[in-house]
Amino acid sequence: MLNPHRFFDPEPTVRKIASELYDGIKNLPIVSPHGHTEPSWFSDNQPFPDPTELILIPDHYIFRMLYSQGISLEALGIPTRDGTKTTDDRRASWQIFADHYYLFAGTPTGAWLDHEFTEVFGVEEKFNSDTAQRIYDQIASKLAQPDFLPRAMFDRFNIEVLTTTDPAESTLAAHRQIRESDWNGRIIPCFRPDGVIDFTQPEWQENINKLSDVTGIAIHSYSGFIRALELQRSFFREMGAVSSDHGVESPFTQRLSDNEAEQLFQRALGGKATATDAVNFTAHMLMEMARMSCEDGLVMQIHAGSFRGHNQFITQRFGRDKGCDIPMQTEYTRNLHALLNNYGNHPNFRLIIFTLDESTYSRELAPLAGHYPALLLGPPWWFHDSVEGMTRFRQRVTETAGIYNTVGFNDDTRAFPSIPARHDLARRIDCNFLAGQVARHIIDIDDAHRMARELTYDLVKNGYRL
Amino acid sequence: MLNPHRFFDPEPTVRKIASELYDGIKNLPIVSPHGHTEPSWFSDNQPFPDPTELILIPDHYIFRMLYSQGISLEALGIPTRDGTKTTDDRRASWQIFADHYYLFAGTPTGAWLDHEFTEVFGVEEKFNSDTAQRIYDQIASKLAQPDFLPRAMFDRFNIEVLTTTDPAESTLAAHRQIRESDWNGRIIPCFRPDGVIDFTQPEWQENINKLSDVTGIAIHSYSGFIRALELQRSFFREMGAVSSDHGVESPFTQRLSDNEAEQLFQRALGGKATATDAVNFTAHMLMEMARMSCEDGLVMQIHAGSFRGHNQFITQRFGRDKGCDIPMQTEYTRNLHALLNNYGNHPNFRLIIFTLDESTYSRELAPLAGHYPALLLGPPWWFHDSVEGMTRFRQRVTETAGIYNTVGFNDDTRAFPSIPARHDLARRIDCNFLAGQVARHIIDIDDAHRMARELTYDLVKNGYRL
Amino acid sequence: MLNPHRFFDPEPTVRKIASELYDGIKNLPIVSPHGHTEPSWFSDNQPFPDPTELILIPDHYIFRMLYSQGISLEALGIPTRDGTKTTDDRRASWQIFADHYYLFAGTPTGAWLDHEFTEVFGVEEKFNSDTAQRIYDQIASKLAQPDFLPRAMFDRFNIEVLTTTDPAESTLAAHRQIRESDWNGRIIPCFRPDGVIDFTQPEWQENINKLSDVTGIAIHSYSGFIRALELQRSFFREMGAVSSDHGVESPFTQRLSDNEAEQLFQRALGGKATATDAVNFTAHMLMEMARMSCEDGLVMQIHAGSFRGHNQFITQRFGRDKGCDIPMQTEYTRNLHALLNNYGNHPNFRLIIFTLDESTYSRELAPLAGHYPALLLGPPWWFHDSVEGMTRFRQRVTETAGIYNTVGFNDDTRAFPSIPARHDLARRIDCNFLAGQVARHIIDIDDAHRMARELTYDLVKNGYRL
Repeated sequence: MLNPHRFFDPEPTVRKIASELYDGIKNLPIVSPHGHTEPSWFSDNQPFPDPTELILIPDHYIFRMLYSQGISLEALGIPTRDGTKTTDDRRASWQIFADHYYLFAGTPTGAWLDHEFTEVFGVEEKFNSDTAQRIYDQIASKLAQPDFLPRAMFDRFNIEVLTTTDPAESTLAAHRQIRESDWNGRIIPCFRPDGVIDFTQPEWQENINKLSDVTGIAIHSYSGFIRALELQRSFFREMGAVSSDHGVESPFTQRLSDNEAEQLFQRALGGKATATDAVNFTAHMLMEMARMSCEDGLVMQIHAGSFRGHNQFITQRFGRDKGCDIPMQTEYTRNLHALLNNYGNHPNFRLIIFTLDESTYSRELAPLAGHYPALLLGPPWWFHDSVEGMTRFRQRVTETAGIYNTVGFNDDTRAFPSIPARHDLARRIDCNFLAGQVARHIIDIDDAHRMARELTYDLVKNGYRL
Repeated sequence: MLNPHRFFDPEPTVRKIASELYDGIKNLPIVSPHGHTEPSWFSDNQPFPDPTELILIPDHYIFRMLYSQGISLEALGIPTRDGTKTTDDRRASWQIFADHYYLFAGTPTGAWLDHEFTEVFGVEEKFNSDTAQRIYDQIASKLAQPDFLPRAMFDRFNIEVLTTTDPAESTLAAHRQIRESDWNGRIIPCFRPDGVIDFTQPEWQENINKLSDVTGIAIHSYSGFIRALELQRSFFREMGAVSSDHGVESPFTQRLSDNEAEQLFQRALGGKATATDAVNFTAHMLMEMARMSCEDGLVMQIHAGSFRGHNQFITQRFGRDKGCDIPMQTEYTRNLHALLNNYGNHPNFRLIIFTLDESTYSRELAPLAGHYPALLLGPPWWFHDSVEGMTRFRQRVTETAGIYNTVGFNDDTRAFPSIPARHDLARRIDCNFLAGQVARHIIDIDDAHRMARELTYDLVKNGYRL
Repeated sequence: MLNPHRFFDPEPTVRKIASELYDGIKNLPIVSPHGHTEPSWFSDNQPFPDPTELILIPDHYIFRMLYSQGISLEALGIPTRDGTKTTDDRRASWQIFADHYYLFAGTPTGAWLDHEFTEVFGVEEKFNSDTAQRIYDQIASKLAQPDFLPRAMFDRFNIEVLTTTDPAESTLAAHRQIRESDWNGRIIPCFRPDGVIDFTQPEWQENINKLSDVTGIAIHSYSGFIRALELQRSFFREMGAVSSDHGVESPFTQRLSDNEAEQLFQRALGGKATATDAVNFTAHMLMEMARMSCEDGLVMQIHAGSFRGHNQFITQRFGRDKGCDIPMQTEYTRNLHALLNNYGNHPNFRLIIFTLDESTYSRELAPLAGHYPALLLGPPWWFHDSVEGMTRFRQRVTETAGIYNTVGFNDDTRAFPSIPARHDLARRIDCNFLAGQVARHIIDIDDAHRMARELTYDLVKNGYRL
């Protein structure tokens, strides 16, 4: 069902070169340095419950589109925050999904799902109203087989490294279990301290308490907070972590004096921090995180520019990550000035930037990455992880920053069985991009083969110090 | 003269598919849900006076380009606000237009005019200095024929619905005449209240007076103003309207208390409203318009981001809509937050957004439309209604929002005989876009045929509740 | 080694047309109306010292990329501000460059260098670690030949006009020498007064002193400053200048009263001007420069939106123009409002705008240029002077502004032997763009031939009044 030349340019010369390049790299192992799978899937290694719970319910890319066309999240079985019942008729939710699968025509979600159905679960029919229940049965029966346990899929997907995203206050219990097991899959944590840095998060105090507990440092001051973070970073590193990650509305950076930082932190502990305090503290903490990275070598990632929970009705009822995070204009040149001037020339520092604002690719990010030794660009993120989005990224970034200031692909997913689909799509688009350059005699075919391998494998391993 | 494969990708595979898709939809009726034709053309059904008055004088797309190259609007016969004489030598103006027709090479105006000359008026020569007067004669003689009366052209163009744009204070006299005539052409009004909402408009008080007159409500208060608007919306609906339209510099939305709104309104009545008052009142009135839409079902349109009358010299001498409205950066994620949180989940609300800031397509608008059930995206507007502009729109919107959160095409024109040209161009570009997806195996040919029909006909009818 | 069809679309129909168009214009003379070559090269006409000093050391496009991958500027022999020694082993620096030449795959710098090596210096091998020293020898031996003296290269490159960039306070000594020599190469200055307008520049007072010296006007007041500028503009015009140029962070324009301007200027003379003063004075001086242009006919250029010297470490050690100037979001619609309303309709005024913010092409700049008679758009600047960058420019500008509101190509370079490479690349991309339009039947082949010539030769000569 899947065309072997899918996503390649239809022009025969380009297609032929793309196909040749793709053949050279398609079997390289998957390196996944940033994502949102659950480590417990791999520590517990229990069967995934059913197709709806595996594919539909965790994937806000899917249900946001259904919601946009008037389908309630209740009908899809998305769990509520307060436990109010939504449907648990998994087959009925699946049927709604199938009835509206035409909505995904031309979207990356559609392309990934087609791949997943076909390649991962061996489905041979088009997914629609008529085939919905047969396909449900087929996937459900696969999920009951040992070959479809999380570890078996991980091995079959040829994943060399898989990084999860873990709060700063985590005990990394599941990671520890995996490491202590007899299974050799390399699953590593990533240090994500947003929940203890961002005063505006409702669970901030609770997260601080957990951080106190897990570190044994009673956090009553800014300096204690910093010590606790340093201790947890060190613990994460022992558990295999190579990176930290920071989700921020704005990439604004500035250094406060210790005294100013302490004052802000005390106001937060007293429940009196303002929105401006939160902005200033986050800007300062990005500087602190960069400082720590220079010292401990964790690669620092910044994911900036998302307005989280734009639809309050959805967020209040269903919680975070429910498909209503909306990108905003984002500025990097001025906002990163303080951070890059302090750490951008440091030989031990590495910063990977992600954006949802494509207008910054050629205007700000490629020029910054094409100058600062510490700065690398993450791949097209979220809405832009798509055929056109990846193409635009390469077209707008490569001429100024080359490919060596980028870090290959991130799948960034909580949809585990979509991982091979996402990497395959990215590999095809990169090969197609290079093929277009070969066909226009901008690079030669030898360069292109080398670059295809770099984009698929070497850049991510080097970029993330894996 | 017109190539049957014009605007299609030259790559033979894509071209063949595009051509096949286009053949399947090219004869579908035209649905024109937003535009600026005069209803009086169709109520009076008088011959258009001459080629210059029909084609050149009303079309600011044309004369702005001539002006940019140093040709005065006086020489083109554009009427002045104060009645100061400009040329009435229509043939001389036409000659200037022809002498400079090369300026339009590669522009949508050029493409539309080529179509209009050839397909509507049967011209078989290239338009230039030499052929100018012969072509003038040819068109003039056509315009004298019954087949070229407004109603006859409407019927021949295969227009199913044509929407005009009418101020809130309109009596809709021409619309009434059309409805009461024996002619069956469906021409409907659209409720556009900018002139009574925007305090900064010089005729604001005059428009309020007209609104009082037409509704019989003496408008001395905000509450009276709201009642008058509700009454006129109801009248517009009786006269066939399905939509309202709102032209704003910024899509900023916020709800004021009734008391605050009343204070602003009183300041405006007293001639003392500030620019900030006007901004705040407009932001509030967008909320009120959304509330009314939830109640009466009129589809709400917002056209945001134009700096109207940028060239004061032109505006003072010739008035509005004279080719010097210039787009500005526009922000939607924060600005629409209040409106979408209040009404974006409402089952009876429908909001169609238009932008002049293409950087918002993938960053803000597609993510918003791909989540909120009430939100749909209007087609590429104004400067972006073009081969490349429409292509960029599809490339940047479809992957995140699909096609079902969009509403097909708007011709948005005051150049009546360009309507078939504009729709034909849009249909070709949509088919070409879909063909590219088929050729890259992103969608299959059956999907593409269905989507071509949706983009041409079904989405606009559903989106506008026609 | 260079493919004759390089940079053309691989689709055979488009490629054939592109090739035909290119053949028609490839031998037209080079007109270079804006750049950064040294006039002293041509007045002295001495051999260029060696390949590293000719090609690597002046070219921040090259060494910024090497720096981004951790290579120190010291190792490349970039001179420091304070004269601290860096390497003078030119062969070692050249070797580092060659070892990392793979970084430039897919960049315009790579494309230009390939052209330069092959076409200018007759190199027949790929540049890499193995060939580095052989190629060094080959270029070095060429540079010792009379054929490779600056004037000989200028003549061989078929340059009709070459414009340098000269500070307002310059004596234009080298230009005078060239004019008084028996050589006929047309090298003309451009009036660039940033150094005496921008209070924030560290050498501002020194520059004012020089301006006093060169004009014989003791500058103690704003009015004296204005007289001195007028005098120098007149002197530049006598020396062949046709244009002024203005590098500003923001294109903000506003007119101050003479009194306000005097106050700001006095604060600056007293060393007490604030950052805001500098912004306001620059905005006012852009108005003054426009006024003078109306009077003396110099074409005014604005290059806006670069954050100069973003990396303070580099700037402090190595000075300006060292590869760490980073673009910023830039706004034109509001910022140019004052200037365009005062001068945009003036028949003697001509303003050419350059941007680093591509999001403004279709949103602001093309609509402005497609209306105001005085406004023309400069070609894609700096990072955007590339295959993809030039393609985006044409795709986003042409439909709204046509080609006649643009001014052909600028090489904007301090890398003299790259000039033919840069013009050749631009010509190829323009022909390819036109070929795509012919193949899609948007324009016909006759139009395309005419437009290719306009884009290459006529528009730049007319636009710059050459």
